[in-house]
Amino acid sequence: MTKIDFDTIAKQFEQIQDRACRQIEQADGKSTFQSDQWEKEIGTGTTRVLQEGNKIEKAAINFSKIKGQFTADMAKMAGKQGKNFSATGVSSIIHPRHPFLPIIHMNIRYFELDNNEYWYGGGIDLTPHYIDKKQAVHFHQQLKNFCDGYHPDFYPRFKQQADEYFYLPHRHETRGVGGIFFDQLNTNCGLSASRLFDFVRQLGNLYPRLYAMILENEPTKEATQHEKQWQALRRSRYVEFNLLHDRGTKFGIASGGNTESILLSMPPTAQWFYNFAPEPGSPEAQTMAMLKKGLDWINMA
Amino acid sequence: MTKIDFDTIAKQFEQIQDRACRQIEQADGKSTFQSDQWEKEIGTGTTRVLQEGNKIEKAAINFSKIKGQFTADMAKMAGKQGKNFSATGVSSIIHPRHPFLPIIHMNIRYFELDNNEYWYGGGIDLTPHYIDKKQAVHFHQQLKNFCDGYHPDFYPRFKQQADEYFYLPHRHETRGVGGIFFDQLNTNCGLSASRLFDFVRQLGNLYPRLYAMILENEPTKEATQHEKQWQALRRSRYVEFNLLHDRGTKFGIASGGNTESILLSMPPTAQWFYNFAPEPGSPEAQTMAMLKKGLDWINMA
Repeated sequence: MTKIDFDTIAKQFEQIQDRACRQIEQADGKSTFQSDQWEKEIGTGTTRVLQEGNKIEKAAINFSKIKGQFTADMAKMAGKQGKNFSATGVSSIIHPRHPFLPIIHMNIRYFELDNNEYWYGGGIDLTPHYIDKKQAVHFHQQLKNFCDGYHPDFYPRFKQQADEYFYLPHRHETRGVGGIFFDQLNTNCGLSASRLFDFVRQLGNLYPRLYAMILENEPTKEATQHEKQWQALRRSRYVEFNLLHDRGTKFGIASGGNTESILLSMPPTAQWFYNFAPEPGSPEAQTMAMLKKGLDWINMA
Repeated sequence: MTKIDFDTIAKQFEQIQDRACRQIEQADGKSTFQSDQWEKEIGTGTTRVLQEGNKIEKAAINFSKIKGQFTADMAKMAGKQGKNFSATGVSSIIHPRHPFLPIIHMNIRYFELDNNEYWYGGGIDLTPHYIDKKQAVHFHQQLKNFCDGYHPDFYPRFKQQADEYFYLPHRHETRGVGGIFFDQLNTNCGLSASRLFDFVRQLGNLYPRLYAMILENEPTKEATQHEKQWQALRRSRYVEFNLLHDRGTKFGIASGGNTESILLSMPPTAQWFYNFAPEPGSPEAQTMAMLKKGLDWINMA
């Protein structure tokens, strides 16, 4: 069981970031990513942001490489013991302009403790403002195909974990249609160290392709004021999830990460409407009805 | 030391809510508060919301009265032991339309454990989008005058606690110009049970008067696009504070409170701009320079 070197992983992650940026730029067709390097006590990173695109309002694809003390809080969160940790990862969120296009999120990360324990985490999930059943089914099918290439358990297991993770208990709703989510994955999962690393890397590479396919089907009809308001409301739920529940955001903020990079996940705009309830039977109500855990997208086709 | 009956306190708090609504309506001069009663397993409450006012975009003044299990998490947060708790409180946030008018927040609350321990918490703080030094000084002076009527230690102590509490560590900035904040206040503070209750009640009554005075000085000049954007950015910081740091919000969400009431604190709209830095010397930069702990507003006049 050969452990892969931390710097090798970080290097490859950086390349995944780079490739994703080029593919997303191409899919958008207008704006390009600006690049900001940051250096803090905890480590370094490159924040890449595309703004005011053709189809994309704001996209962030971040890379970071950090080392620090594995605090009691982190140990509790991870359920692991160690004195120091190293971590590297790529994370991305894309907020499209059109309310009929979904928000997408991807993260791949590698953690290592000084006791030689290590694990990967990550996932991809989709948050439509309006759920398009066909799109959701296709998205899940692609994730399943990808996972099945590595292990038959991966898709069902990681799909369920996404349902659990991307959930707003105070709203009794999922963030979107889910996807896959995994954490603390190491060779216990049945893959060799190199095969496991390949799974994580290729997931990073799958991400821009998945979203490029979605962007190809951008609706030609302009959104109405009503649809834009609904988008702003759904974006407020995205804010709530990320600031109230997301472990990555909390970890980043608590560990002294780069705030502007971490909070690039925030939508460009969000609106809160008191006690908003969609008209029965409306597209908004139909979306609400599908923001549920445990929907079997694959067999919904 | 006569302990005041829980229902008496709750009753009085409800009257404070009612009075505040009438005074804020009068100060706004256009909209009125709608009233929603809610009932959940944990208790009952009345959510009162004013929207689309003349000077006010959204105001919430909430009352609630809850009872429940004092969970391990709550015990840890409060540093107290007990099996069951009762709590009642009034909390309010007002988001004005004009960026030159400040956001204001008030909370008074009473907690009781089944072991007969009890305490009050609360405070008032001001969050200008653009800091007006004269307004901030006047606001603090009013709070000091009020506190001094009860105990000479109250203002300096509670002012410092507000500085500590209304702070965004990830931004290295205070939420606004602070005010007063207190928690776990009981007869240890030197006041009798009835005098202490009077302090808390009168603070609730001071609140609408303080804000009515501020609304009287609404600027006549319409805000520019630039000023409105800055307001939207400052509002995003308000969102970050409330969802990432505010104990009241976290407690409310974790204890199964009424989500729509708790999150009425959210601004109507918020915007996130990546890496925004105000022009040196601009009014925005001047505001940033004053978002600091420990400013001695009283002696700044």
